[in-house]
Amino acid sequence: MNFLEQYRQYKSLIEAELENLSYSRQAPIEVYQPLDYMLAIGGKRLRPVMTLAACEAFGGDVQKAILPALGIEVFHNFTLIHDDIMDNAPIRRGKPTVHQKWNTNVGILSGDMMLIKAYELVCSVDAVQLPKVLRVFNNTATKVCEGQQMDMDFEEKDTVTVADYLQMIEAKTAVLLGGALQVGALIAGADEQDAENMYCFGCKIGSAFQVKDDWLDTFGDEQKVGKRIGGDIAEGKNTFLMIKTRELASEMQRSELYHIYHNGHNDQEKIQSVMNLYHQLNISEITLDEINRLYQEAMEALHTVCIAEDKKQFFKEFAEFLIYRDF
Amino acid sequence: MNFLEQYRQYKSLIEAELENLSYSRQAPIEVYQPLDYMLAIGGKRLRPVMTLAACEAFGGDVQKAILPALGIEVFHNFTLIHDDIMDNAPIRRGKPTVHQKWNTNVGILSGDMMLIKAYELVCSVDAVQLPKVLRVFNNTATKVCEGQQMDMDFEEKDTVTVADYLQMIEAKTAVLLGGALQVGALIAGADEQDAENMYCFGCKIGSAFQVKDDWLDTFGDEQKVGKRIGGDIAEGKNTFLMIKTRELASEMQRSELYHIYHNGHNDQEKIQSVMNLYHQLNISEITLDEINRLYQEAMEALHTVCIAEDKKQFFKEFAEFLIYRDF
Repeated sequence: MNFLEQYRQYKSLIEAELENLSYSRQAPIEVYQPLDYMLAIGGKRLRPVMTLAACEAFGGDVQKAILPALGIEVFHNFTLIHDDIMDNAPIRRGKPTVHQKWNTNVGILSGDMMLIKAYELVCSVDAVQLPKVLRVFNNTATKVCEGQQMDMDFEEKDTVTVADYLQMIEAKTAVLLGGALQVGALIAGADEQDAENMYCFGCKIGSAFQVKDDWLDTFGDEQKVGKRIGGDIAEGKNTFLMIKTRELASEMQRSELYHIYHNGHNDQEKIQSVMNLYHQLNISEITLDEINRLYQEAMEALHTVCIAEDKKQFFKEFAEFLIYRDF
Repeated sequence: MNFLEQYRQYKSLIEAELENLSYSRQAPIEVYQPLDYMLAIGGKRLRPVMTLAACEAFGGDVQKAILPALGIEVFHNFTLIHDDIMDNAPIRRGKPTVHQKWNTNVGILSGDMMLIKAYELVCSVDAVQLPKVLRVFNNTATKVCEGQQMDMDFEEKDTVTVADYLQMIEAKTAVLLGGALQVGALIAGADEQDAENMYCFGCKIGSAFQVKDDWLDTFGDEQKVGKRIGGDIAEGKNTFLMIKTRELASEMQRSELYHIYHNGHNDQEKIQSVMNLYHQLNISEITLDEINRLYQEAMEALHTVCIAEDKKQFFKEFAEFLIYRDF
């Protein structure tokens, strides 16, 4: 079975079980409806798929990993609901966000409920693995919240360094991919060091994925990415590209950057001018180099894991899929 | 040792350990500061004290119950932070609420972090008790969120029945007291049925406590209660007293009630007029009867618990303290 077939098989296990959850059958319906709504909007299900794959790679019973994997997906969706409130985002995956469709209070409370349901699902692991799995899940959840706080702090700063930024994206998005893999490995009874190495693999590849996201927003193909290119520039977002540019810019380029955002330019002018700076400073290549560096680190972590090479194939292809995608 | 001495001893164990937590030593400080702030504001620490007391009553090691007990207190404080946002409350225990002192985003995110930290603390129980304890904690946390949703739903309704109201206060506030006792019993290795009976005791006495709160707001002694009497009436809150009044009122009294709230009366006039209705309908006695009924049910639950009578003394006195208090 090739990578994509295998991925789809794991994903369909997840989708089938997600439908079974159907929280809205419970009262009071107002607090449960948003859970089903968010979970039905879909997505790539990267994280729970990785839990199943890691469990199987270490010789575990995939069936036993399904509910905990859902727990990780439910956790991810809880963060989306609350982040969307904090970021004032009206749309998520083409649909109204929860606080937009209902209201902020519903968003807060159903998010809380979703976090509790995430724990409930994770708690379904066998008693013997429960303490370890919960330790990973608690640490991961903590880091995700820390990452969201860093992200909010960074919005008000223009002194963010590349190192700060990488730390933030690792916490906010990458550790959950790492945690998903680690939990899957632990459910299979993997050695703790191996499980930890799977976590590192997930963190690095998750960070690479996020930096690639930044790159695609500026240098991607509008047709393939499926959204207008340059959105991050227009919004003046602190991306890897922008932060690197600030680091490398000469005095004159820095002042040019300042004027681009403070002289009432329209979006198209901003995008054009910042792209010029990016070209002058070789930002596209530097960013692709960074993605490659993270990818190599991920591969090193995977290399140290003590499982047969053929079991690693799925994760290698997954990493390549995330890094070389153009959408 | 008498009840109050014992209570203070448990409470000081809790307070000492709470100081040790000191989350603000971690970065990013913005997400951790509100945790220490909320936990330092204090309170009666009813719930964690009950966890310690239940653990000791069943012959357990109190030291092993301290961190899980803190988990329950941290969970309680998480609900306060998020409820205060949802209720738009500026003041809590005489201090600015978290979203007031910082902002709503900080309130949401630090509340989330607090919920995760609550789980982390609860997870410190011995592996052998962990699955049972987490089942109780997950169920309790779920009910608390359901209760908050019911409470918000009720604000927009004037068709709430006494049964609805009792269900809401049980979920929103009483089950956590029940859960605190049940967790303490389970940590001590209590029989599941006994632990369940302790939960019932806590639920009933917690509900009685809440109804007593409603009674004190209208019929209490301003000096002792420490706040202006009649606040609930002035706000038109759906309390046990108000809901019972609506149930018992004649057509004429109902229309009188309507006019009290729709004719631009000032607070003092509202309080005076509603108090008149309460007197006509004997609401004070009916409410005290309800408190007594809940108290009796609590006592029955406690009676069925298989521990020596002298071990029950603390809980009996605790129940009386909650019910007969005039502050």
